[in-house]
Amino acid sequence: MKVRARYLFLMALVILGLGLSALAFAQDPTGAETLEANPQAPVDYVWVMICGFLVMFMQPGFAMVETGFCRAKNATNLMAKNLLDFVIGSLGFFIIGYSIMKGADKFGLFGTGPLFLLGGQYDVGKYLDFFWQLVFCATAATIVSGAVAERLKFSAYLIYSTCLSLFIYPIYGHWVWGGGWLSQLPFGMGHLDFAGSGVVHTIGGMVGLAGAIVLGPRFGKFAKDGKPKAIPGHSMTLAALGAFILWFGWFGFNPGSTFNAHHLRISVIAVNTNLAAAAGALMALITVFLKTKKWDVGMALNGVLAGLVAITAPCAWVEAWAAVVIGLVAGLVVVLGVYGLERLGIDDPVGAVSVHGFNGIWGLISVGLFADGTYGNYAITEPFARGLFYGGGAGQLIAQLIGAATAAIWAFVMGYIMFKIMDSIFGIRVSPEEELKGLDILEHGTPAYPNFYTINS
Amino acid sequence: MKVRARYLFLMALVILGLGLSALAFAQDPTGAETLEANPQAPVDYVWVMICGFLVMFMQPGFAMVETGFCRAKNATNLMAKNLLDFVIGSLGFFIIGYSIMKGADKFGLFGTGPLFLLGGQYDVGKYLDFFWQLVFCATAATIVSGAVAERLKFSAYLIYSTCLSLFIYPIYGHWVWGGGWLSQLPFGMGHLDFAGSGVVHTIGGMVGLAGAIVLGPRFGKFAKDGKPKAIPGHSMTLAALGAFILWFGWFGFNPGSTFNAHHLRISVIAVNTNLAAAAGALMALITVFLKTKKWDVGMALNGVLAGLVAITAPCAWVEAWAAVVIGLVAGLVVVLGVYGLERLGIDDPVGAVSVHGFNGIWGLISVGLFADGTYGNYAITEPFARGLFYGGGAGQLIAQLIGAATAAIWAFVMGYIMFKIMDSIFGIRVSPEEELKGLDILEHGTPAYPNFYTINS
Amino acid sequence: MKVRARYLFLMALVILGLGLSALAFAQDPTGAETLEANPQAPVDYVWVMICGFLVMFMQPGFAMVETGFCRAKNATNLMAKNLLDFVIGSLGFFIIGYSIMKGADKFGLFGTGPLFLLGGQYDVGKYLDFFWQLVFCATAATIVSGAVAERLKFSAYLIYSTCLSLFIYPIYGHWVWGGGWLSQLPFGMGHLDFAGSGVVHTIGGMVGLAGAIVLGPRFGKFAKDGKPKAIPGHSMTLAALGAFILWFGWFGFNPGSTFNAHHLRISVIAVNTNLAAAAGALMALITVFLKTKKWDVGMALNGVLAGLVAITAPCAWVEAWAAVVIGLVAGLVVVLGVYGLERLGIDDPVGAVSVHGFNGIWGLISVGLFADGTYGNYAITEPFARGLFYGGGAGQLIAQLIGAATAAIWAFVMGYIMFKIMDSIFGIRVSPEEELKGLDILEHGTPAYPNFYTINS
Repeated sequence: MKVRARYLFLMALVILGLGLSALAFAQDPTGAETLEANPQAPVDYVWVMICGFLVMFMQPGFAMVETGFCRAKNATNLMAKNLLDFVIGSLGFFIIGYSIMKGADKFGLFGTGPLFLLGGQYDVGKYLDFFWQLVFCATAATIVSGAVAERLKFSAYLIYSTCLSLFIYPIYGHWVWGGGWLSQLPFGMGHLDFAGSGVVHTIGGMVGLAGAIVLGPRFGKFAKDGKPKAIPGHSMTLAALGAFILWFGWFGFNPGSTFNAHHLRISVIAVNTNLAAAAGALMALITVFLKTKKWDVGMALNGVLAGLVAITAPCAWVEAWAAVVIGLVAGLVVVLGVYGLERLGIDDPVGAVSVHGFNGIWGLISVGLFADGTYGNYAITEPFARGLFYGGGAGQLIAQLIGAATAAIWAFVMGYIMFKIMDSIFGIRVSPEEELKGLDILEHGTPAYPNFYTINS
Repeated sequence: MKVRARYLFLMALVILGLGLSALAFAQDPTGAETLEANPQAPVDYVWVMICGFLVMFMQPGFAMVETGFCRAKNATNLMAKNLLDFVIGSLGFFIIGYSIMKGADKFGLFGTGPLFLLGGQYDVGKYLDFFWQLVFCATAATIVSGAVAERLKFSAYLIYSTCLSLFIYPIYGHWVWGGGWLSQLPFGMGHLDFAGSGVVHTIGGMVGLAGAIVLGPRFGKFAKDGKPKAIPGHSMTLAALGAFILWFGWFGFNPGSTFNAHHLRISVIAVNTNLAAAAGALMALITVFLKTKKWDVGMALNGVLAGLVAITAPCAWVEAWAAVVIGLVAGLVVVLGVYGLERLGIDDPVGAVSVHGFNGIWGLISVGLFADGTYGNYAITEPFARGLFYGGGAGQLIAQLIGAATAAIWAFVMGYIMFKIMDSIFGIRVSPEEELKGLDILEHGTPAYPNFYTINS
Repeated sequence: MKVRARYLFLMALVILGLGLSALAFAQDPTGAETLEANPQAPVDYVWVMICGFLVMFMQPGFAMVETGFCRAKNATNLMAKNLLDFVIGSLGFFIIGYSIMKGADKFGLFGTGPLFLLGGQYDVGKYLDFFWQLVFCATAATIVSGAVAERLKFSAYLIYSTCLSLFIYPIYGHWVWGGGWLSQLPFGMGHLDFAGSGVVHTIGGMVGLAGAIVLGPRFGKFAKDGKPKAIPGHSMTLAALGAFILWFGWFGFNPGSTFNAHHLRISVIAVNTNLAAAAGALMALITVFLKTKKWDVGMALNGVLAGLVAITAPCAWVEAWAAVVIGLVAGLVVVLGVYGLERLGIDDPVGAVSVHGFNGIWGLISVGLFADGTYGNYAITEPFARGLFYGGGAGQLIAQLIGAATAAIWAFVMGYIMFKIMDSIFGIRVSPEEELKGLDILEHGTPAYPNFYTINS
């Protein structure tokens, strides 16, 4: 009996190995074979593609939020940065990033494989996965531009985007989604991050924090006694438009992360995403109102984003009431984060660190608390993830804490080193004159609004 | 025979009853059972979810149209209102609204059931339906902000949003879509409202009319002799952007209302939606041009929306030429409505009452005229709806008139009572100083455009 | 044997003929029969419809790009033009355009059939095709408004839109996509244009070139010595928003053109679309930087669009690295085009001719070079298209060159005649006073931004 079991086990391994290499070397550029093997594939492809389009559409969402929260004199520069991080992300991820993230695992640390989409693998499934991973990578890249806004040189931003798309993001992404060590942690089901509270948002937010620290605050942000001064953004309508676009795009980001339309669970994910966003906005609005007696729209918009970031990791594993709680906490976290960073003398013009960095961490932790045992590891079959409040013990929570700490440290340290090296070589901050005049004219030759009389605040 | 028929009838009732309770208590949080029972479900889920995302995206559409048509000094306030009605709608509909709308019918008047998504029913199908109903409810809520713009207190708006999401909308929605009395009218096929010309738009528009009347006109809207004065909005580009976004989102609103991708009729619905919008715009543009010799873009944009609102009820039951006619009439209705309300001394800053209220009524009526006997009650099998012009007699038309009158009266009366009560308790209108200065600074502490020199018109 | 083969061939023709007429007269308004005949149809309908919605959403993309690149004093006018071309396109294509494009072929030159959607054919499949063709036609129409911006009379624009939607576009469209002579060229697989680099973009761009030439340059565009002067647009944020929206919408435009979700090739198309856009932006940015030492955001945005236009024809037939090359060349073409036209004294305010006209041609040609033999004529089965670089010989390239030349000549000549006739009858250019004051007030009665102090540049 024992011999036979061992034999069967070996057979299974061989079959699995053959299957995996078959997959790895699948080359079906027409899609005909894939369709024959799985006649139900079209609805999955449609789902993933359209959700991927929505994720791509988050790019103008970020662009509008960031420019709306910043001054008119830097609007062209912010458009340039938000455009170019997507451009560089697309090309860089194609050249090497994708191989590092999803190539054959080495030591649990990174993926390996030939460049250019894993050696130009010409396969409909491979292209689908590449497209999906690409728009996620570009989202992480674009988060940083908010934190370093209004003072980072454009050339430094180009280099930063390249580093993030080629190395910082894909390596951490490999740890969680590429079969790396975090996914194999011996606690709970390993570290879980459904749609990227950690992979995308904590990474983006913490690199942003590093950038904001290396750069130092903008002129006029802090009085001589260190008291922070509000620098209002130039367009509340564009900021609101951007937040709505992000909310919309997030319905691709989270539900689409099933990567499978046959998980009808997508409806639960969408509802959770929406409720957390609403709860985050309400909590942020009320918290600031209690303090200032003003209905602060900017903070409410950041509350929306905070709720969205936080629910991104747990959205597939929790039920609706938990999504509301997660969102409410997120609304609080973003307000405390914004005030806290200001007190520390750190200038994050749009609140990106609090929204993405801190709430990414909170989102990761919340999986370990609220996962309710109804969804697995991107699977609708057992085993299911279960957190502390649903009798799952502390295992999952431990895995989440390890992953969250890893994300925060990895991103902050790598970001800090990167910005410091650049700064020591060529200086990453624009000259004081340029900062006062705005980056638009000197860097780009064009003010954003030449037909309007603007106030240079 | 008679005995047997009665026996069969009773059996059918029992089976139906069991089926319904099975449905009511379905608890399939993973979605695995639902998928097994209906392997074709994924494409329906994908269709409904993505259309629901598009409906959600109508929120920034409304926000941009309304702010574009209003003055810069109230732009932050309009962003706040458009954000918060969605936030409150999401949470309020989760807490109780959904139960009232879709819970077990009581007397044909309202639904009942436990709070919090019907007692936290944890089921992929239930979440899907909740998501869909939620984004529709939030659309109704956001319509009102246009009619009461530039003078309603923010706190009053928060209370109004709560009332609408919790009671006014779900109760009328129950009458039409929740199995209530309007759906059971003994005329035609009962009152029919495919995607909500009445449920969403007449309700929103008529509550808005009540608000505009209780509030009274803005300062400067009418000269001492009662002659209306145009108060131009602050951004035609944002208004146009908003109208385009709404047009786009409406392709989720109307075709998605099949709630089923297996109704290939969705193509007919999309074509009708598009043609009515185009016809509405053209008619509104030409009508105003004949009067003023100016190509009035604002009115053309409202013509688009008028056509969209009108086609919302009939879109599934009519053919393309009828959609064009319905749109042309809608374009006329909106122009006459806007001028008519002005003549009555009622100030609706963005034309929301004419666009949504009046054209919602026209849309409901048009079903009774143009329904052509090719689509049923959300079914592609007989019986099919048939209106007056297609030999269906007056039955359907009567059902439509009853429903339209009910929607208009219910919404106006409930809205009037609500705003009057609030007004008598704490006064819903901002102070004259605040109105002149704009609501942004006093209510929210932030002007929308601090980097621009603005004209306080 | 020979007799039998001939017999079989005749039988096949008869069956095919019957099948085609059955298709032509299919009248399935409920969609029930279509669903029974093809139970897999829903996912195709969902795919095509949602992609069609995305294509429609390109309308505000164009509107924002064009208005952002033009001056504030003409912003209302540009909104009007971008709205009305879609309105007129929708109605005109419904009345006659669709019959000309997709009706029964006559001499390979045009389609024939009754008006109003081929005689009001009431069929879910026909409506689906009509919707798809309609949004493409409207895209071609809206391209022109950029090239003739800031000086063309609104009435002339209405007439132009009608001509293009009714004749110029549908006739050329018939040649390529309606079974006309270009699709039957005896080279390669006949002229191939997957999603319309030629049909949509070259046609739009070249009509625009004709319009720009007939109109002449704007006041102040060229100094007395002929040296061009930059006339900066009024909102870089709106221009960037528009470009992002177009990028997003293009994911409907290209992948949706399979008209079939069972072509899993859609993933390859999406990746190619994205990479070409990114490459175009990077190349345009760098090219201008090398010349001016400024990071020119406007040119980078046009580089995005250039890459998208160029990849539109080849996207289904090439692999990722080729898409990058096609995009890089496109980025160069747009920069050279913009500078070249200026040198020729032609004023194209937003670069529409270079983006759409020239890169449309480049896109068509690229099919003949890079088609790699993995996709057929909207089919995943042989025969597959193969270009020069993949051992396909010069056949396909010749077919592409013929088609490209035809598109350019047809559009330019027809556009030139149309604008010249209009000009000789009533003058298509606004008066000098109106041009200086801006078109908004005199044509539309409303400035776009009445609450802002604007600079009349």
